[in-house]
Order: sequence, then C-alpha cells, then structure tokens
Amino acid sequence: MSAKVSLVIFLTLLIASCSAKRKPYTPCKSLVLFFHDIIYNGNNAANATSAIVAAPEGGNLTKLAAQFHFGNIAVFDDPITLDNNLHSKPVGRAQGFYIYDTKNTYTSWLGFTFVLNTTDHQGTITFAGADPIMQKTRDISVTGGTGDFFMHRGIATIMTDAFEGEVYFRLRVDIKFYDCWSY
Amino acid sequence: MSAKVSLVIFLTLLIASCSAKRKPYTPCKSLVLFFHDIIYNGNNAANATSAIVAAPEGGNLTKLAAQFHFGNIAVFDDPITLDNNLHSKPVGRAQGFYIYDTKNTYTSWLGFTFVLNTTDHQGTITFAGADPIMQKTRDISVTGGTGDFFMHRGIATIMTDAFEGEVYFRLRVDIKFYDCWSY
Amino acid sequence: MSAKVSLVIFLTLLIASCSAKRKPYTPCKSLVLFFHDIIYNGNNAANATSAIVAAPEGGNLTKLAAQFHFGNIAVFDDPITLDNNLHSKPVGRAQGFYIYDTKNTYTSWLGFTFVLNTTDHQGTITFAGADPIMQKTRDISVTGGTGDFFMHRGIATIMTDAFEGEVYFRLRVDIKFYDCWSY
Repeated sequence: MSAKVSLVIFLTLLIASCSAKRKPYTPCKSLVLFFHDIIYNGNNAANATSAIVAAPEGGNLTKLAAQFHFGNIAVFDDPITLDNNLHSKPVGRAQGFYIYDTKNTYTSWLGFTFVLNTTDHQGTITFAGADPIMQKTRDISVTGGTGDFFMHRGIATIMTDAFEGEVYFRLRVDIKFYDCWSY
Repeated sequence: MSAKVSLVIFLTLLIASCSAKRKPYTPCKSLVLFFHDIIYNGNNAANATSAIVAAPEGGNLTKLAAQFHFGNIAVFDDPITLDNNLHSKPVGRAQGFYIYDTKNTYTSWLGFTFVLNTTDHQGTITFAGADPIMQKTRDISVTGGTGDFFMHRGIATIMTDAFEGEVYFRLRVDIKFYDCWSY
Repeated sequence: MSAKVSLVIFLTLLIASCSAKRKPYTPCKSLVLFFHDIIYNGNNAANATSAIVAAPEGGNLTKLAAQFHFGNIAVFDDPITLDNNLHSKPVGRAQGFYIYDTKNTYTSWLGFTFVLNTTDHQGTITFAGADPIMQKTRDISVTGGTGDFFMHRGIATIMTDAFEGEVYFRLRVDIKFYDCWSY
C-alpha cells in the first residue's frame, strides 16, 4: 500500500472519530434498574418510602388529589433493585421528587438521582423530565452524573412495571449513556 | 493546486471542525415558542392551568404570598403556542413547576419540560434555572432533550410577553441549541 | 526535520485534541464559593434567607419535620461569598430549593442556581443532585450555565462548612468545570 493511500485511510478514520455525533448512536454504557415507590397513606408509616408533601387547595397529605392528582408533590427515597422484586437486595436509592402536573390525565414531572453504592457501581445519576405515565414507554433526560458516571449524559426509558392501587408502583428504568467520560 | 496545498487546506478544515467550541457560536437549531400560565385563584377552576401547591407560613393556596410571593411553589401544565395568542392551536404542553424564591423582588426558579407533539416536532426539551423576572430578558439552561431533541443542550432566553394581574402571564422562549445530535 | 516527520507529529497532536475525553481530567475552570442558609423558624423573619414551604402530614412550616426532616421542602435565596464569613460582601445569590428525602438519616436533594454578578463573574451556574449531608464531601452535577458559564458542565464538591442548630448552615462549594465554552 502506498504512503499516499495510507494517509487517505488514516485521515478518513480521523474525521470519523472527530465528528462522532452521527446516527445510529450506540450507547457507551447501559444499565437496567428497577425502583419501588410505596406512598404514605396514613396507615403504612413503617413501609412507606415516599410521602405527599404538597397538595392543591382542598387536598390533603394522605390521599392523592382529586383531578388526576394534579398539584401533588411527593418526596421519595426508594430502593433500587436489579430485578423486579421489591425484596431483592437494594443496589442503591432513588431520591428526589415527583409532581403530578395535569388535570385531565396522569402525567408527572420527575427530578431525582440514583445513588448507587455497590462493588459494581459507585456514583450518582441525575434525571429530569416529563413522565407521561399512561404511555407504555417514555424517555427522560439524564442530565449529569458523578463517580463512575462522572460527567455522563444520556436518555432513560421508563416503564411502569407494576402498580397496586394508589400505594405502590414499580418503575423499570433503561439507562443509555451516549456521552461517557472514563474516570 | 498542488497535492501539498490541498492537504494543508484539508487539515485546516479538519482542525476547525474538531475544535468546534469557539465563539461566536452559531446555534445548530433554534425555536421560538410561547406558553401561557393561568394560575388558580379560587374562582377560575375551569380555565386555570397552574395551581399554588406550597406556601410559606401564613400563606394559602389561592393567593400568591405576601413578600414577593417568596415561598410559593406552583405546578403547571400550560399550552405552548407558536405565536402570542392564547387561543392559537397548541403545539404541546409546558409541564413542571416554578418557585418564587426572593423576599425583596420577583425572582423564580424554573424546572420544566416542553412536550412537543406535532408533525414538525416530536420530543421533549427540559429546562432548569433562575428566572429574575423583572429583567427584560433572562437566560436559563436547556439541560436535555429527547426524541427530535435527543441529547440536545442549549440556552433559552425568556421574556415576559404579557401579564394580567396575578392570574395570567405569557412567556416567550427563544431556544437556541448549541449541541445537537441528529436522530 | 523532514516534512514527513512534521506531518506525523502534527497528526498526533490533532488526534490528541480530538479525543479529549481521557483521564486524568483537568478542569478547564474552577471556582470555590460559600453560601449561607438561615431558615425561618417563626422568630427570625428579618434575617431568614430560606423558608420551609412543604412538610409531610403532621408537620408545620416553622420547624423541620420529625423523621430526619423527611418530606420538608425549603425554598432559598442565600448570599454567596468568596470566604466563609456570612458578613463578607456577597458576590451573588444561591437560589432554588432543597428537599429532605430520607427517613433514617439526613439526606437532601438540591435544585438551585448560583446567580453571580460581579466584575469577575457574570452569569449563572445550575446544579442538581443528591446531597448525602452526613458525608464529609459529596459531589453533585453542574448541569448548565449561562453568561460567563455559557453551556458549561462540571462537578461540584459540597462540604458542610458550619451549622448551628437547625437554623444556620454554610456550604463550601468547589466547582470544577470540565466542559467549558468560551463566550
């Protein structure tokens, strides 16, 4: 192979590596995790992992509000597991809040962080975005990370894996990082 | 043109494309949208798109608090339009919350998402940041996106386009993305 | 030096500058700042810079809640200083909210913005993430910036520099930006 041809190949590869933002994107890291939310209803103090802390006029803090829970804010500290079993050994905590923000359907807005603390993963992943609960899957933004997830960004696909009345729900979160920084 | 000169030009262009973070920055995508907030005051349940859900001691949920509304949190699900007319066909919903956070002037902190669902735009744009309301224009961060706005980041310039008493306000949002990922 | 050797050196440097995300990372910009939070307790209206605005069932807005303050949301507008003296000339305001989100230890979730307005720094820095208060240092994400911090991202290391009862605390924030855009 001539030097000239080598150079062309080399430069082509170089350009490809520089202008990396082309589809289809391949995640540089992926995680699938579950978290479990048990909301306080006045009778389950021992088990509850979340609590209603704000409600619209006429609402209260032990029952989700009338119009599709519009105006409720819940604060949570939920166990994260590797599978869909509430009783599996937690690998971390999902901490933050959700608000119900629509009057004529169920939607919420999420701001929360996964705090992971295992031999496999040490660090935090922070999420923000709209969660149109009634859709089978919905994407929210991964806006930052620390530790093993230093400076990471990505997309999380959320699925409601189970819900029981207005007390328990379980979310499956498929996290795909597209911007990874090794640390 | 000699091969050598071509190579120099080529490499120069290559360097320029690699070290892209130089001013002046040109947005890779821009959008101008309006959203409309009608806050619940006890008498406008049918029209209201937002509600006060938290207030400081002594406050209530149908009237914004005394000291420049310090301590109020409002949850909203506001229509987004392409122009400044509340009655134009919505292109999506602005969903999230704002808090009033200063005792001696009007400032707020915003965490919200534009959920767009039209033939032109499908996806979400998430915003976070301080909003010093009394300034004519103020910049907040676009921290993430999904769908057509997959992994996007940028800056949104907010202007109060109209306000009527303490019930209605309309914001104009000039979104400029500087980090775009085609999808 | 032959033209060929020059070219190799040149291309090597070019590759290095393109694939920048390698450890060890060096911050492109660093800042150390302090902010001071005086929470309203019913008797300190003149000095208070923050207020409890949401509480779990049974709680109130002048006293942090019983179970490690689980379920409290506080809104704040705190002075930022260059040193650890509450009475130093402020260089800006820290504005946003924190929530206490665990029932069996002190942890919070933070969403806030530094609004800086001095000859040295004009612009905003927005933070989000979990704050496990009892740890000596904890990292949260810097998710965006405006003005001098246009499009910046990074990591902030938070330390509790002082606290006095349940009324005053001071945080030291070491901000390290790893993604800087000159503006």
